[in-house]
Amino acid sequence: MTSSSKQLANTHVAAMSAYTPGLQPTEPGWVKLNTNELPVPPSPRVVEAIQSELAEGGKRLRLYPNPNSAPLRAAVAAHHGLAADNVLIGNGADDVLNLLLRTFCGPDKPAAMTVPSYSLYAVLANAQNAPMLEVTFDRSMALPGDAIAQCPAKLFLLTSPNAPTGVGFSPKDIGDIAKSFEGILAVDETYAPFSGQDCVGLLKEHPNLVIVRSFSKAFALAGLRVGYALASQEIIGLLDRVRDSYNVDRLAQAGALAALGDTDYYANVIADTVVMRDKMASWYESLGWFVYPSVANYHFVEPVSRRGERGLAVATSLYEFLREQKVLVRAFPKHALTESFLRISLGSETEMETLQKVIRDWVAA
Amino acid sequence: MTSSSKQLANTHVAAMSAYTPGLQPTEPGWVKLNTNELPVPPSPRVVEAIQSELAEGGKRLRLYPNPNSAPLRAAVAAHHGLAADNVLIGNGADDVLNLLLRTFCGPDKPAAMTVPSYSLYAVLANAQNAPMLEVTFDRSMALPGDAIAQCPAKLFLLTSPNAPTGVGFSPKDIGDIAKSFEGILAVDETYAPFSGQDCVGLLKEHPNLVIVRSFSKAFALAGLRVGYALASQEIIGLLDRVRDSYNVDRLAQAGALAALGDTDYYANVIADTVVMRDKMASWYESLGWFVYPSVANYHFVEPVSRRGERGLAVATSLYEFLREQKVLVRAFPKHALTESFLRISLGSETEMETLQKVIRDWVAA
Repeated sequence: MTSSSKQLANTHVAAMSAYTPGLQPTEPGWVKLNTNELPVPPSPRVVEAIQSELAEGGKRLRLYPNPNSAPLRAAVAAHHGLAADNVLIGNGADDVLNLLLRTFCGPDKPAAMTVPSYSLYAVLANAQNAPMLEVTFDRSMALPGDAIAQCPAKLFLLTSPNAPTGVGFSPKDIGDIAKSFEGILAVDETYAPFSGQDCVGLLKEHPNLVIVRSFSKAFALAGLRVGYALASQEIIGLLDRVRDSYNVDRLAQAGALAALGDTDYYANVIADTVVMRDKMASWYESLGWFVYPSVANYHFVEPVSRRGERGLAVATSLYEFLREQKVLVRAFPKHALTESFLRISLGSETEMETLQKVIRDWVAA
Repeated sequence: MTSSSKQLANTHVAAMSAYTPGLQPTEPGWVKLNTNELPVPPSPRVVEAIQSELAEGGKRLRLYPNPNSAPLRAAVAAHHGLAADNVLIGNGADDVLNLLLRTFCGPDKPAAMTVPSYSLYAVLANAQNAPMLEVTFDRSMALPGDAIAQCPAKLFLLTSPNAPTGVGFSPKDIGDIAKSFEGILAVDETYAPFSGQDCVGLLKEHPNLVIVRSFSKAFALAGLRVGYALASQEIIGLLDRVRDSYNVDRLAQAGALAALGDTDYYANVIADTVVMRDKMASWYESLGWFVYPSVANYHFVEPVSRRGERGLAVATSLYEFLREQKVLVRAFPKHALTESFLRISLGSETEMETLQKVIRDWVAA
């Protein structure tokens, strides 16, 4: 051949950057508060179900998984009071988001997102060579409903509760957007189980609505990679054409199905999360820090130095101080609305005590 | 909204059909010879490794997996005598194939494949809105090297050993194609471990070569969804931008890594497969059937009826007769080169005995 592989590649791929995932340290000893994982293990039923799928020397592993994750799909449908053909199971919610971009966007079909929100959206648009329009929040982080409704995109990706702020939006306001918006409105409800409200009830009324969910956070199964879409049969049918026919493996299907069945376990986990959320919000405020009212399992906080300063340098200083003490949080230094903040996941009691101690040391330093 | 979701979708998605996977019956009692799964379980080390990843109530499942499958990636690299940045781990080989299409193809950048070969390639090209050029075999199923080398595609997907025929191609001939071909030559070596030869040694010489491998067949892990690409650092870097950052879950990473370590187990499995392959080829021939010389774990056979007829109707008749007796094989009725054939996986001794009995009954009927 005479061309380099880079010359042969699609220009938009050669020009793009990959998504930068949060650090996943492999050595022990870290207090990991950077990717919003729950501090507790998944329901004991998850391991039981996976063990059962591994029975008899793992002999079932030689066989392909169910191509549609049919049992899990039916259970998700029942969980939400929908039909199986309103559900698509993905290899994580990221798989579902990617299918949305591939189905509805392209060079002449822009996607859109709010700023700030989940930065993966922009990477997925780049990979699809689709323009990404942006609707920027103001400092209140309240839903810019009119701007979203009037946005000339084919697909709007709205995170609710939002990341990294943790601010929730009311289903009523989202329904109003869906009514006016001329494209597909995908509501990424990864953190909705922590918020006490969701948009599932809007699906019947709004044929352009897609809800994206994840087993990673509220089911403590980030390691299994399972997510799903809820939408009209027509939208699910479109996404399904682009979906890989064996996108979710046997063990992940079995584990997610078992998790969904243990309602009591997860109701307790969420109740504990809410208690810890209130406690930590008060604690951050007791330091004189601004905290967005979170309905998720993390806080977006604006640290204040001992001298009363806030801003990028202050946030960076705390980020690095925490990291030196093996406490990982997440910084968003690339935008004026986020640069003075840190996103800190809710961890276990012990982890929160360590965090508080290190923050106190930083304030005192 | 005023448009339907179908109107909002990309035209090429609305017009395409999903891939039709082979039947995966969930009820017991089937002799399943339709998707080339091994008849034996994976290495016992696979289950041990997954158990170990599930330790302490599955508490590790709450954490994201390694984003690059780094330990598995390093082991695959060592297995092939390459560096880690020559390897990309995928959610099955299908994930890798999809990344190749997304990176190198589009409306003005055609893909190409031989006919017959793996029909998923055409679906992946449709999803990417890329034209798919075809190089058709003649009845010999010998490699049409010049036609491939001169094909004006940006990406050629060549299956070796080929599916559904089982015919292998020499690395020398594939190297000659890579030298002349002006695009990326992806050799899908899903079945290469059964063939005693592969193209890994060509990678250093041919910067446009990509090798695609799977854990589904030769490692008896179809249920886990792990595959990989081997290529230059430059090509891997391009594919990696489009790859989902958590595409392979914790249990699949652990299981595949353990499988790769049990060389002895799989050497025996492959030796047994080869013995059974020779035995079954002779048996099909003893019926007076034409069989392509297979170096894979299946045969592509042309059944002959009691009256000495062959053709689509005869193949369909046997397919249906087998299915009524709960023996599943695969038919390819859509092309003149394949319509009179059936693809039959190599199963266990018992499964092969059942198959032989049902075929004898069909011949006698």
